[in-house]
Amino acid sequence: MDLNDIPLHRDSGTPLHEQLATALRAAMEEGRLPTGSRLPASRDLARSLGVNRGTVQKAYAALVAAGEARAAVGQGTFVAGTGGLAVGILPPPQTAEDPDWERLARWSDRPGVISLAGGMPDARLFPVAPFRESLDAVLAEEGTGLLQYGPSRGHGRFLEVLASRLRERGLDRQAEQLLVVSGSQQGLDLVARVFISPGDAVVVEDPTYSGALALFRMMGARLLPVPVDDHGMVVEHLESLLTRERPRLVYTIPNFHNPTGVTMAPSRRKRLLEICAAAGVPVVEDDSDGELAFDEAPPEPLAAGAGKGGVIYLGTSSKLLFPGLRLGWVAADSQVIRTLEAVKRVADLHTPPLLQAAMANFMMTKACRELVTAVRASYGNRRDALLESLGEEMPAGVSWSKPRGGLSLMVDLPAHISTTDLLSRAVGEGVVFAPGNLFAARRGADHRLRLTYGGVREDEIREGMVRLGRAVRAELNGADQRRFTGKAISPPPLV
Amino acid sequence: MDLNDIPLHRDSGTPLHEQLATALRAAMEEGRLPTGSRLPASRDLARSLGVNRGTVQKAYAALVAAGEARAAVGQGTFVAGTGGLAVGILPPPQTAEDPDWERLARWSDRPGVISLAGGMPDARLFPVAPFRESLDAVLAEEGTGLLQYGPSRGHGRFLEVLASRLRERGLDRQAEQLLVVSGSQQGLDLVARVFISPGDAVVVEDPTYSGALALFRMMGARLLPVPVDDHGMVVEHLESLLTRERPRLVYTIPNFHNPTGVTMAPSRRKRLLEICAAAGVPVVEDDSDGELAFDEAPPEPLAAGAGKGGVIYLGTSSKLLFPGLRLGWVAADSQVIRTLEAVKRVADLHTPPLLQAAMANFMMTKACRELVTAVRASYGNRRDALLESLGEEMPAGVSWSKPRGGLSLMVDLPAHISTTDLLSRAVGEGVVFAPGNLFAARRGADHRLRLTYGGVREDEIREGMVRLGRAVRAELNGADQRRFTGKAISPPPLV
Repeated sequence: MDLNDIPLHRDSGTPLHEQLATALRAAMEEGRLPTGSRLPASRDLARSLGVNRGTVQKAYAALVAAGEARAAVGQGTFVAGTGGLAVGILPPPQTAEDPDWERLARWSDRPGVISLAGGMPDARLFPVAPFRESLDAVLAEEGTGLLQYGPSRGHGRFLEVLASRLRERGLDRQAEQLLVVSGSQQGLDLVARVFISPGDAVVVEDPTYSGALALFRMMGARLLPVPVDDHGMVVEHLESLLTRERPRLVYTIPNFHNPTGVTMAPSRRKRLLEICAAAGVPVVEDDSDGELAFDEAPPEPLAAGAGKGGVIYLGTSSKLLFPGLRLGWVAADSQVIRTLEAVKRVADLHTPPLLQAAMANFMMTKACRELVTAVRASYGNRRDALLESLGEEMPAGVSWSKPRGGLSLMVDLPAHISTTDLLSRAVGEGVVFAPGNLFAARRGADHRLRLTYGGVREDEIREGMVRLGRAVRAELNGADQRRFTGKAISPPPLV
Repeated sequence: MDLNDIPLHRDSGTPLHEQLATALRAAMEEGRLPTGSRLPASRDLARSLGVNRGTVQKAYAALVAAGEARAAVGQGTFVAGTGGLAVGILPPPQTAEDPDWERLARWSDRPGVISLAGGMPDARLFPVAPFRESLDAVLAEEGTGLLQYGPSRGHGRFLEVLASRLRERGLDRQAEQLLVVSGSQQGLDLVARVFISPGDAVVVEDPTYSGALALFRMMGARLLPVPVDDHGMVVEHLESLLTRERPRLVYTIPNFHNPTGVTMAPSRRKRLLEICAAAGVPVVEDDSDGELAFDEAPPEPLAAGAGKGGVIYLGTSSKLLFPGLRLGWVAADSQVIRTLEAVKRVADLHTPPLLQAAMANFMMTKACRELVTAVRASYGNRRDALLESLGEEMPAGVSWSKPRGGLSLMVDLPAHISTTDLLSRAVGEGVVFAPGNLFAARRGADHRLRLTYGGVREDEIREGMVRLGRAVRAELNGADQRRFTGKAISPPPLV
């Protein structure tokens, strides 16, 4: 874009750098500065606008601090990605090098592309200043102790805050039933290391979180998929599986399930707990998205209905608050917690006390309450925009799940469509999604795709669905033609 | 102690809270306020001194910020432990619940006890204010990006700083040959998960780092011990072992070996690399303490002599800088790094970018250079004090290693002495050490013990050795008596 026409008024009373930042922000919103594009060197822009270089640098710094741009050392300043992935920031891979996710990440980073492929929250909502105050406050209060080795179980104050948060959700656990971990991914990894040996069977929902599939596969587990419908895991399929296959674990995401967004029905929860208790199989509840409720209070964890033992509960601050801090927690029977703590100690000794203390402090602030409200409202509006534009743009024969919370939903295309093929076409249209096979415990989900809406603005969502609608219709026509002529048509080259 | 006699002068020009802090500090130094003891409630002390409660609180806060006291939420303020362990801050256990380390930690926390058992650096040396400035600077510069999901490989700027630091040590590695991990313990864990299956053989030095033993045992490895003498691993024992047992890894700590503190001789390094290259067995170099050199520049890493591949190098910021941040790094062949990165992603996605960016910033500051100088000088003096007082206090027949860096040394007692028995007696005298069996790949090291000096003041070291000397002499007499009468004498009861 031509940035030389930005009007700056020296007498307006608003500092020049603020005027410039506002103008750049507007250019981003209107698509004249697309995602991933590089801002001009500050020296060049200053010269062409006739202002000091410092004015431009101040404007850029404000955009970076607000998450609207990002500074890459030695490379310049770039318009921040919206929602998608970034190369190098990938979900756990299925194999050592996962070509699928890496390709998605590269495509998501292309200028002008709208990505509904990643599961990242919107960093533009993060309030940096209040969190910095929390860091300063705990460093002033606890000093060097926060930089020293800390307890493997977790920082005392953070454990207290967690216990009180979980109680509010209906989960009454004592300190000795809690363990702080480095994100719920680590919680799941520790559980897998304790319970799974190569060849052991593990029940998973199908589809499910790709990071869990990657982990269980890496551990050499045999995956036993149980389908998910609009009411969550189809528990009826579970009972015979438990007696026949004697799995070591049942892994479930009962609240705002990833990738479908559905929530498990109360009757199924009750049945699931009964069946697993009778069979003596531990349930692992991944409640990563459980607090991201849009339409009502967050649902009760499954673990709340399970008495003191039986369910190993995983929570995280990554979805509602700051994923980069890698703070998660496990709530379970105290004997299980002691064993997980021993593995945690061997894995990485402990999670940084500084971040735990700062998070404990931040969670008690007004800024945190405001953030939670803003996040829920914002993602809820995006969910609405996505459901609405899917309704407008998708042709007949396409259906999708209707989440009441979380960050994603699943779209079902006619069974003869391959979303792997569709993806090439969609990228050509300028939109990226995650093909269903990435979330499938067994192949055969190639006609499904996942859309995430956490980090994408409503106008981008609408435009993204216009583009996806075009790609789907073209693919339906192409697929019909292929079925008719029996000949494959090559997708456009996309390296 | 009676704190009511602290003289405070209202007209001295020094604020009352500073006078109070100075007086409390003196009481700690003189042993009138021993380690682990609780400071009076601020309300009580304020009343008895006739000052405002705020004055006492300010004094306590200054001690806490300086690492001289620690605040336990809901429990009060305590005189900070010196060096030892704290319950809940344990090395990785040998088993799920390790009674040995837990007991050591409990004993180390007793008021008045001098602990040379833990491997913690001295938090009182940590400069909190400059590190807080680094945190503030990177948050201002990079903003919300530091709170968002980050790259599994590591934060770009931190990787750059690491590469340049390693180059200064003689290790020339590109960005694609580096991986940021959550402490070197995680680096070792990732390596073990990639290379070791249950039943696989692993060569370890004997003695070696207890956290490595715990990890390898948990992974089901068969340990192949190679002895360590004053010149490091006795490499002559290695060659036949490699051909006979076909181990998956050789794990070594060539620089300032933990627990002995010895450094591997150049000729042995050369031979080790030749033998392992010929046998095609990867070497894992744990350089955790490598930068803690007192008498000369830090020794070159083993990996520097190994060309581009062959050695997997583990580093950490835990010994020279701040262990609580859990920042470590792996340098290896780029293919190995890619595989380790994939496991890292499954284990915990990534290490917090905020801490990496802050550390990268801090490592370029004057405060960091001053800290490194202060740490080396301080631990060097403590090493000197320990060697000197061992010479003065130990009876004939006792010998010990002479480290030129690192945090520990090993004491050898006559072979018929059990340091497990000795420990009970030493605790009775008010000094704690770590028995040799905790570092032994096979039993039979019960006559050895490890002493750490990183977190203990020189006067404490001297007093600790007076106490240990008494315990050793008593044990030698008792053991002689037992041998003579053939009857065991019960140690004093120590619960």
